[in-house]
Amino acid sequence: MNAVSRPSGRASDQLRPVTIERHYTRHAEGSVLVSFGDTRVLCTASVEDRVPPWLRGKGEGWVTAEYGMLPRATSSRTQREAARGGQGGRTQEIQRLIGRSLRACVDRQALGERVITLDCDVIQADGGTRTAAITGAYVALVDAVNVLMKRENLRRNPVFGAIAAVSVGIYQGMPVLDLDYAEDSSCDTDMNVVMNDGGGFIEVQGTAEGHAFRRDEMDSLLRLADQGIGELVAAQRAALAQG
Amino acid sequence: MNAVSRPSGRASDQLRPVTIERHYTRHAEGSVLVSFGDTRVLCTASVEDRVPPWLRGKGEGWVTAEYGMLPRATSSRTQREAARGGQGGRTQEIQRLIGRSLRACVDRQALGERVITLDCDVIQADGGTRTAAITGAYVALVDAVNVLMKRENLRRNPVFGAIAAVSVGIYQGMPVLDLDYAEDSSCDTDMNVVMNDGGGFIEVQGTAEGHAFRRDEMDSLLRLADQGIGELVAAQRAALAQG
Amino acid sequence: MNAVSRPSGRASDQLRPVTIERHYTRHAEGSVLVSFGDTRVLCTASVEDRVPPWLRGKGEGWVTAEYGMLPRATSSRTQREAARGGQGGRTQEIQRLIGRSLRACVDRQALGERVITLDCDVIQADGGTRTAAITGAYVALVDAVNVLMKRENLRRNPVFGAIAAVSVGIYQGMPVLDLDYAEDSSCDTDMNVVMNDGGGFIEVQGTAEGHAFRRDEMDSLLRLADQGIGELVAAQRAALAQG
Amino acid sequence: MNAVSRPSGRASDQLRPVTIERHYTRHAEGSVLVSFGDTRVLCTASVEDRVPPWLRGKGEGWVTAEYGMLPRATSSRTQREAARGGQGGRTQEIQRLIGRSLRACVDRQALGERVITLDCDVIQADGGTRTAAITGAYVALVDAVNVLMKRENLRRNPVFGAIAAVSVGIYQGMPVLDLDYAEDSSCDTDMNVVMNDGGGFIEVQGTAEGHAFRRDEMDSLLRLADQGIGELVAAQRAALAQG
Amino acid sequence: MNAVSRPSGRASDQLRPVTIERHYTRHAEGSVLVSFGDTRVLCTASVEDRVPPWLRGKGEGWVTAEYGMLPRATSSRTQREAARGGQGGRTQEIQRLIGRSLRACVDRQALGERVITLDCDVIQADGGTRTAAITGAYVALVDAVNVLMKRENLRRNPVFGAIAAVSVGIYQGMPVLDLDYAEDSSCDTDMNVVMNDGGGFIEVQGTAEGHAFRRDEMDSLLRLADQGIGELVAAQRAALAQG
Amino acid sequence: MNAVSRPSGRASDQLRPVTIERHYTRHAEGSVLVSFGDTRVLCTASVEDRVPPWLRGKGEGWVTAEYGMLPRATSSRTQREAARGGQGGRTQEIQRLIGRSLRACVDRQALGERVITLDCDVIQADGGTRTAAITGAYVALVDAVNVLMKRENLRRNPVFGAIAAVSVGIYQGMPVLDLDYAEDSSCDTDMNVVMNDGGGFIEVQGTAEGHAFRRDEMDSLLRLADQGIGELVAAQRAALAQG
Repeated sequence: MNAVSRPSGRASDQLRPVTIERHYTRHAEGSVLVSFGDTRVLCTASVEDRVPPWLRGKGEGWVTAEYGMLPRATSSRTQREAARGGQGGRTQEIQRLIGRSLRACVDRQALGERVITLDCDVIQADGGTRTAAITGAYVALVDAVNVLMKRENLRRNPVFGAIAAVSVGIYQGMPVLDLDYAEDSSCDTDMNVVMNDGGGFIEVQGTAEGHAFRRDEMDSLLRLADQGIGELVAAQRAALAQG
Repeated sequence: MNAVSRPSGRASDQLRPVTIERHYTRHAEGSVLVSFGDTRVLCTASVEDRVPPWLRGKGEGWVTAEYGMLPRATSSRTQREAARGGQGGRTQEIQRLIGRSLRACVDRQALGERVITLDCDVIQADGGTRTAAITGAYVALVDAVNVLMKRENLRRNPVFGAIAAVSVGIYQGMPVLDLDYAEDSSCDTDMNVVMNDGGGFIEVQGTAEGHAFRRDEMDSLLRLADQGIGELVAAQRAALAQG
Repeated sequence: MNAVSRPSGRASDQLRPVTIERHYTRHAEGSVLVSFGDTRVLCTASVEDRVPPWLRGKGEGWVTAEYGMLPRATSSRTQREAARGGQGGRTQEIQRLIGRSLRACVDRQALGERVITLDCDVIQADGGTRTAAITGAYVALVDAVNVLMKRENLRRNPVFGAIAAVSVGIYQGMPVLDLDYAEDSSCDTDMNVVMNDGGGFIEVQGTAEGHAFRRDEMDSLLRLADQGIGELVAAQRAALAQG
Repeated sequence: MNAVSRPSGRASDQLRPVTIERHYTRHAEGSVLVSFGDTRVLCTASVEDRVPPWLRGKGEGWVTAEYGMLPRATSSRTQREAARGGQGGRTQEIQRLIGRSLRACVDRQALGERVITLDCDVIQADGGTRTAAITGAYVALVDAVNVLMKRENLRRNPVFGAIAAVSVGIYQGMPVLDLDYAEDSSCDTDMNVVMNDGGGFIEVQGTAEGHAFRRDEMDSLLRLADQGIGELVAAQRAALAQG
Repeated sequence: MNAVSRPSGRASDQLRPVTIERHYTRHAEGSVLVSFGDTRVLCTASVEDRVPPWLRGKGEGWVTAEYGMLPRATSSRTQREAARGGQGGRTQEIQRLIGRSLRACVDRQALGERVITLDCDVIQADGGTRTAAITGAYVALVDAVNVLMKRENLRRNPVFGAIAAVSVGIYQGMPVLDLDYAEDSSCDTDMNVVMNDGGGFIEVQGTAEGHAFRRDEMDSLLRLADQGIGELVAAQRAALAQG
Repeated sequence: MNAVSRPSGRASDQLRPVTIERHYTRHAEGSVLVSFGDTRVLCTASVEDRVPPWLRGKGEGWVTAEYGMLPRATSSRTQREAARGGQGGRTQEIQRLIGRSLRACVDRQALGERVITLDCDVIQADGGTRTAAITGAYVALVDAVNVLMKRENLRRNPVFGAIAAVSVGIYQGMPVLDLDYAEDSSCDTDMNVVMNDGGGFIEVQGTAEGHAFRRDEMDSLLRLADQGIGELVAAQRAALAQG
């Protein structure tokens, strides 16, 4: 097992350097630039005093997400979705995942009749954009809710707990944490895991790329994810502890 | 725990009645009507002698899927996607899942430069449409490949193993197998599991709808899925054994 | 004239076997699987308590139709309209025809402010899908209106008379009834006729595919249509007479 | 019966004044402004040296049509289809009819591998736009083919015979020829008839708007159409006889 | 400088013949066919008693424009935008320019809560379609406002001053007025200028096609534009002075 | 005149602080983050070895641009164009302007059969996004061309001269340079000017928002633009002089 080395030289259970920069842009209620190594995602949280039609008059709010990738975030240029006439299947799948994940830490009644939209735009991609987006969007959400609490005098904080996400996978037979693009494009199994700070699972999405994965491999992956998410939650806390 | 009873009266580890009707329509190379209880999906496999642009000249084939739901497959009418101007995010997510799952049992070099398209159209919905679709599409795929082997004299069978799928979830605190709509719309956790006949995982997609799920709950769900998929693979074999 | 034989061996004035299966799916207020030989169309009638914007507050209802074809209803796969981004010209022309035809037997004031949508989805195509759709949709409409009359206590039945449709054409010089695909794709003239049970014309759409048709040929076609529709109306009645 | 008078004061078998102005614009190979009373349609015929993909290499040409209506051709403004994002069902139905009708007088082998596109744009609408369009498009087509014959030295003329169209209908119980908008919007039955100069039918599209029409009414309508088309063909000939 | 001659033989400061034909179609409140030489644009002004959502309840109206080109207005056929699925960038740019230009002579409070839509459809193109459109749309706007004043008894005329537009450019080194297509397609600099009858600038849009233009060239172009617009305003006045 | 003060306290002829950060992301051949005060635009230049269809086989290249704005670059959230189904009129107008402007400094024959795409994505908006985009895109273009020259051994540099852009306008009667959002949203006249480093004009787009602007005002604006562009070209040179 020790014979396998990761392209980046990282240990199998080692995250890439994580940075979380708050207040990156000035207009949004929450604005966070998150980096997982060379993957950089700008996550903004926007508060609007409206709800989608199906929630009108119910006294609840909504949290939703949109995901995009700048055309040259990738090694070769990707056509702009606005120019292509709509969001592709992958984009929709990712933004639905981000929205579901973040709703898992929001009390929608405490939020009141408001929508918070989490826009996650990938500035530079090197694998793991959706997990970085979820991890950064949580911080943007907390910042936006704090603005709202000051401005609107909410009775209680609608955010409970913390949410973070990480990818795990089997690279050349070895379970590894936080795949970068070099690993992601050649791994056998790829799994995205979203958890809360209490160790509960929010989402588990595992895909066998090459051969099917066994139950014991899955157990190893879930253990790695659990460890990585602990470190990411700590990074979120540290970022939020600053001014 | 025993106090919880399923709306359908089934035991927690009991599938709905499964039927697999081959040769349901006459034009497609493979045509299967699959039922998981009241969920009925028509799965057709169409063979075309072309490949997508990115595979030209590589000597490999492709397997892809499309998913649709008739407007009144559901209890209230759903707007037709063709009339709305495109496939929604849920549809794209499901058809991507079906395609990925079935590609896991196909040797694309043995297939040669051909595309097999699996069209999964829901005639009637009662929960679990995507897992029924995958389970039925596998049978349609085998039928289509057998037509192809007779017609084209392929050197070896491009399909290896079998693929089936089932949903599991936590309903009122109890892990249950093969959720119907009544359970699906009120469960705490919903997980779709795709496996092969060797017990390997192809896809695991678990979502906490209410509270986050614990590691031991996940283990129970995976055991139920493993058992259910064993029964589904047996049903596929029985169907394929008939003329 | 006798020298011409139809590909199916039918007499020139012979319909294909017609079956009308009610309650085919369980959610729709009316659900009918109609077969004209190998042509099979699922017709559902859905009742909704709303009217289009231009009818608001007028105390009248509306009947409309949508038409679709499963991708592999045809001998080679047809691209899914939802994936292509919209309904094509042929689809729109057919669904407009179905809607107009069925409105001819509905008293929209007696219906009240409701919409009944007739979804006609072709499961298998062998010519004559639009005429089968109209004939089946009528039965689905009656079933839906009966549900509505029980549920809403309407003062009078909004459906009057019966509507059925059949194709006629000139195949190798001979006027024939109810063209199948083999005839349809090589006939000289193709005419779709919609009539009511009183022998009145609702729609006549005749097209010269090869040479222009003469007035006496048109007369022969209209006589064949009149006879065929009589048989179809009898089949509708027989189906509706069952529980 | 004589008590009924038409809003325009015309006799029941009287066309509106018909004018056919050739060479209306200068770029198109054929350019005709046709008027049926206040209905004015600009019909241009454009020749292109290409064929649609499905005709490549077959040595045949194609004739197709597109139809449009300027936003304020109608009494209240209609939204521009380009702004709405596509052509509606009515537009597609009409342009398919125009294309089919004109193909009925073209020998596509004699045309060679070329497309002639007939653009019919309604400048002002007062009922009967599709029949005026077909009648005018025929003249534009002849002009374009004549240009082509001079330029390309075709061996034989691909146009045979003449095609014209007129609407007939039952207005307040009386069969009438060439309905204007006032009649069209309140008639019981509306029928568009396309014929050639030999008295053969190319298309018959009759619709019962109010009550179903009887066989004898249909016979009266067809007789009126036959007479009107004779006059329209004469007007086409007169126009084409001028330099 | 004198050595350069324009393809049309015009003097460098000479407009093409300008005609402005009012009441060209009968339904629109204002309907003007404007010609700048062979460029012919139908400009209609439509009044509607509604305002866009963002103006509701503000007591102001709106003036907007749409631009289109018939497919064979040009020397080779241009694909119809409605068939292509939407308005292209050039179309949107032009119609935004027309709308902005005309709003510069309208007191939107005096107009009241109404929209006037200026539809500018190019019947035949020979360069300068957008400037002809603006010049003609002004006359249609005045006609529509006069209808409105008679019908609605407005307290004051919402139109103040006059607006006209012309193109200028540098053709083979020589500043010229009102470019036709032959000049437009080979000029070095192309500038569209919109001015009011007081000599004020509303829009100046200059583009270097070949080499960058110098400040003294710009001054020459602006002088030519100023002169040409004086003549166009005179033509507008003359047209409006007729019954 | 001195009584008017700008919201930012700047002098009338004072640019906002300009920063040009090269190599902002790592995948693109050129990647520049440009700031005009709080307006921040990421400009990437991507080289692809293909040309648009109309240039095939002509031995020339192409330079094009796309423009986008992140949803929360603005003070309230703007809907994502990809989610809306296409690029709006303003976006298309801006990206056409950027593309035309940059093509003015490129020898397309020296570029060879390649496309350089300039993606300009607004991270934060405070007025002047299109002029910042042009100014930054020039630097990205130079970086990309330098990469290309090293990699492909081009015979000569396809970029000649420099291109920069700035906005000028009349704010409360005073001509000012480089409007920020507070000025832009309330100014009387707004003009975007694109020039090269030789003082030649590439584009001039002036719009009267409130009252028409006079010739002497235009002269003042052009002088301010000329001065500002001189400073911007100096900033471009300084940035490019760094490793």
